[in-house]
Amino acid sequence: MTCQVARFPLVESISEPADLLGLPRERLGELAEQIRGFLVENVSRTGGHLGPNLGVVELSIALHRVFESPRDAIVFDTGHQSYAHKVLTGRWREFDSLRQEGGLSGYPCRNESEHDIVENSHASTALSYADGLAKAFELRAACDRRVVAVVGDGALTGGMAWEALNNIAAASHRPVVIVLNDNGRSYAPTVGALAEHLATLRTPPDPRAASDPVRTLFETLGLAYLGPIDGHDIDALEQGLRRAAAMRCAVVVHCVTRKGNGHSPAEQDEADCLHAVGPATGAKAKTTSWTEVFGAELLAAGAERDDLVCLTAAMLRPTGLHPFARRFPQRVFDVGLAEQHAVTSAAGLALGGLRPVVAIYSTFLNRGFDQVLMDIALHRLPVTFVLDRAGVTGADGPSHHGMWDSSLLPLVPGLRLAEPRDPRRLRELLRECLCVDDGPTALRYPKGAGGPDLPAVDHLDGVDLLRAAPGSAVLLIAAGSRAHACVRAADTLTARGIPVTVADPRWTAPLPPALAGLAARHALTLTVEDNVVTGGMGQRLAHLLVQRDPVPRLRCLALPARFLPHGDRGDILRRHGLDAAGIVDTVLRHLHPSHCHKRHRTPARST
Amino acid sequence: MTCQVARFPLVESISEPADLLGLPRERLGELAEQIRGFLVENVSRTGGHLGPNLGVVELSIALHRVFESPRDAIVFDTGHQSYAHKVLTGRWREFDSLRQEGGLSGYPCRNESEHDIVENSHASTALSYADGLAKAFELRAACDRRVVAVVGDGALTGGMAWEALNNIAAASHRPVVIVLNDNGRSYAPTVGALAEHLATLRTPPDPRAASDPVRTLFETLGLAYLGPIDGHDIDALEQGLRRAAAMRCAVVVHCVTRKGNGHSPAEQDEADCLHAVGPATGAKAKTTSWTEVFGAELLAAGAERDDLVCLTAAMLRPTGLHPFARRFPQRVFDVGLAEQHAVTSAAGLALGGLRPVVAIYSTFLNRGFDQVLMDIALHRLPVTFVLDRAGVTGADGPSHHGMWDSSLLPLVPGLRLAEPRDPRRLRELLRECLCVDDGPTALRYPKGAGGPDLPAVDHLDGVDLLRAAPGSAVLLIAAGSRAHACVRAADTLTARGIPVTVADPRWTAPLPPALAGLAARHALTLTVEDNVVTGGMGQRLAHLLVQRDPVPRLRCLALPARFLPHGDRGDILRRHGLDAAGIVDTVLRHLHPSHCHKRHRTPARST
Repeated sequence: MTCQVARFPLVESISEPADLLGLPRERLGELAEQIRGFLVENVSRTGGHLGPNLGVVELSIALHRVFESPRDAIVFDTGHQSYAHKVLTGRWREFDSLRQEGGLSGYPCRNESEHDIVENSHASTALSYADGLAKAFELRAACDRRVVAVVGDGALTGGMAWEALNNIAAASHRPVVIVLNDNGRSYAPTVGALAEHLATLRTPPDPRAASDPVRTLFETLGLAYLGPIDGHDIDALEQGLRRAAAMRCAVVVHCVTRKGNGHSPAEQDEADCLHAVGPATGAKAKTTSWTEVFGAELLAAGAERDDLVCLTAAMLRPTGLHPFARRFPQRVFDVGLAEQHAVTSAAGLALGGLRPVVAIYSTFLNRGFDQVLMDIALHRLPVTFVLDRAGVTGADGPSHHGMWDSSLLPLVPGLRLAEPRDPRRLRELLRECLCVDDGPTALRYPKGAGGPDLPAVDHLDGVDLLRAAPGSAVLLIAAGSRAHACVRAADTLTARGIPVTVADPRWTAPLPPALAGLAARHALTLTVEDNVVTGGMGQRLAHLLVQRDPVPRLRCLALPARFLPHGDRGDILRRHGLDAAGIVDTVLRHLHPSHCHKRHRTPARST
Repeated sequence: MTCQVARFPLVESISEPADLLGLPRERLGELAEQIRGFLVENVSRTGGHLGPNLGVVELSIALHRVFESPRDAIVFDTGHQSYAHKVLTGRWREFDSLRQEGGLSGYPCRNESEHDIVENSHASTALSYADGLAKAFELRAACDRRVVAVVGDGALTGGMAWEALNNIAAASHRPVVIVLNDNGRSYAPTVGALAEHLATLRTPPDPRAASDPVRTLFETLGLAYLGPIDGHDIDALEQGLRRAAAMRCAVVVHCVTRKGNGHSPAEQDEADCLHAVGPATGAKAKTTSWTEVFGAELLAAGAERDDLVCLTAAMLRPTGLHPFARRFPQRVFDVGLAEQHAVTSAAGLALGGLRPVVAIYSTFLNRGFDQVLMDIALHRLPVTFVLDRAGVTGADGPSHHGMWDSSLLPLVPGLRLAEPRDPRRLRELLRECLCVDDGPTALRYPKGAGGPDLPAVDHLDGVDLLRAAPGSAVLLIAAGSRAHACVRAADTLTARGIPVTVADPRWTAPLPPALAGLAARHALTLTVEDNVVTGGMGQRLAHLLVQRDPVPRLRCLALPARFLPHGDRGDILRRHGLDAAGIVDTVLRHLHPSHCHKRHRTPARST
């Protein structure tokens, strides 16, 4: 792999962080500018997180000059701020493959480099990792190894960061350098009291800083505090970090950065400073995303009932709530990166007589599982969770695939989970969710566009039949967006003389009991879902079917029980047999084993 | 139901909170003493939470005099401090049934009283509920309804309390009265920086309080602060609460209480001020609990390898870590009520080369699911979770039954889950967990004693056979502690001429593949587990079995997919057919439907 770096000779001179020490100090500014140019050029082409990375170029240089990675452990919170770190650890060569399948990950990745220690990109974890690392180094008498946590202010709104701060402060003799990368935003402008106080410090550094509330806050907790430091002044950053490291205790280094710094399109993007950009491609046909369909229908529902309120955890725009927020600003609550509070304050809203909708990415609801179970379901509160980015997401990799929710939420007693197959069903099922008043409901859909509507040809006790072949031997049960692939597969098989029925249960938890009877009338039933196989729709149907006598034959197509790397969503689905061709293959293989197709796939298994 | 209240006439005079206003102010102290005497007498007999409730008698009186429940919403965090509230809302009549099946719950319970708004007793939720309620009252123009959150300092170490504080402070015009019940302890002495600062305020109230760190902390966040107030002085409490209510904004009322106040055995119990006491019963044969077996084996393992470290979330003694802590104090970390941090700081410890064991109650690990998935498993880190109180716990009710872990943890790729059937297997499986170095392991066992060891009569590819009848028609697969019941059932059935094989897989996730072959050789397979049916061992086995041709017959005995009330553990298991008689019944019913037994039970179903 090669990359266009002719215009970035200083970038090209760095193979590992130690090379930074060989550069004359006066050329570091030039290096920063080249990294910035390099990132703009590459990320504009490949797509990726732009704004956050432009904000931490100087900070990354200073970190790698002061600390000796990987001997010193540098842990990045919200890993989307690690591109400059990747460049400085020699990975500039691979930036043309950023976020492509088999290419450079958009987050820290332990397979890529010994300098990447943690690779989860759920927010607010770095301080907990750092606390554990510092304890380990102390116990192993490796006190010369230093621990650095690089956290954004958005990450500090997450409760686990507070849990960690409280523990770090209680043993503040133990050295941990907490770099507070304060850019005044998380994804969007940060919500909450802490952010307001950070804002008072942002410009310009105040000589009376001793009375500043951020300093006061950390010092009151028992943590030493240095700053605020101009996060684009490499010399000042180096001095601050060296001083912090020398203190041999827990210390906050408050660095004020500008998201998107040095790239005017990013600096001028008020919404999110070009937080993430798509790849440069030819003109695409405009398709309406699931998110947009949801946003429009929610707005319509909100106009009809004034008890409808919405919550987001710092993702107003990405979850499609902004049209609603524009029209009904008092009825939207952005709680910051704080999923637990999003869930339980929704419980409070419901107890207060309102009808809350929590719009959230599937992967992040995992942070609020206990709250969904205890605070919502145990209290039988009518709260609707709308899970965007359910299933394979693509370029964001293992920590962003929303592949657990359809296993997790069915564990919650009384919760009903709907999966729309097309935009029309999304609108209908959202309305049905909002009519449920005795417990939680959830709605899941993937990233991207919903495609054309797919009408039912028949109905059976709550199940939509999308194809209903008389005397069919094969039943395909499609969860949500997999319906299109199932219908295409059915048409292919029917053309080959194998009549197929396709069923869409619409609600995948609890499963409509009619599915069991339907399966009993077919020689082979195949479930198809964009979720991990363990605990998924297929496994839950298996449990229904084994109660019958005789037990109908069942195969389950789903995502395998392992973490999936980044890549194109369509490619990943195809690899796991979740496209039409894969479904045809699986049917042929299991209906008539002799038909075995040369494309060989096995349904995901788990035990 | 009647109660011995002759000695507590003032208690007897209270039917609802409004009755408090009819009492002359000078008799309130007498009422407090009677409530205290009433609680000591009753709780000593029934068992229950004693220390925390003795600490909040005056506070509960003051709250119900100042606020008008249920019009004003009073939300208790960690519901085990609600006994005085129950007395004052007329439920003193039912205290003889406290925590008994069908009797008074040990926590707030919405079925009992309109004064109980939330009933979850996982900590740190009250502020989030309060934030939602305050928003709802504002939107619904019900601003005359007031919102009060009663939180303990232990609850403030939980991250979601911080998420809520940050949101409440960001809209501090919205009235929420935050009563900080500061008793210096959560379950045990609280860990962390915040607790240290609270400690500086505890005695005596300091006239220079303006410079106190707790006041500083809350005021820096943007919250108004009143206090500290002597939490046993009803007049002072009333004044403070009235003043707070009149402020019409978010305000912290800092009340300093003494856990166990006024009952010398509780005041003198240094471990936890008689946090919870067992029921008064006759002399019982001393049996060794699962917790003790774990504690002793962990100590032995810790003596052999110095990289072994342990974590607890404020439950050092209840989880059995205290022998280890006594011997190796540097190798135990109590992180406070902060499960997320417990998990991710364990990840940090593992990254630093140590071998962490996280000892936790099953129900509380739900708080750290995302961290187990992302921070431990995605990184393939060797961390062992030891889940005490797995399955039905008993008197603590729906929020404490550990009935989800065996469905939740199998969703985590690479995680291996063990369930010991007896003390010997607990020791062995703990050692096996500690030998796994490429990912997480978990070990689950219930409350109570493990009973006698139950040797295997044979082994089959990792599966222990506890009974192996030649040509048996019935296979019982027992998860963990259910093995004893399965063996008793097998012996009963065998005596009736139905030979039964009993298998213990030892590891229930992933399930040993040998189980499928074993099931295929039996006319009926029955799984028996002390976990919710959805996603449990039975359902996962069903998924394995439907892949076979023909599919073996399977029935799954497990807990039903709903929240279970409090009651005796044995009674609850029996009610759901998880005892020997229930297993015999289910086998007879499904092996030969004509044998239908008159005790009628159906296996738990879910879809």
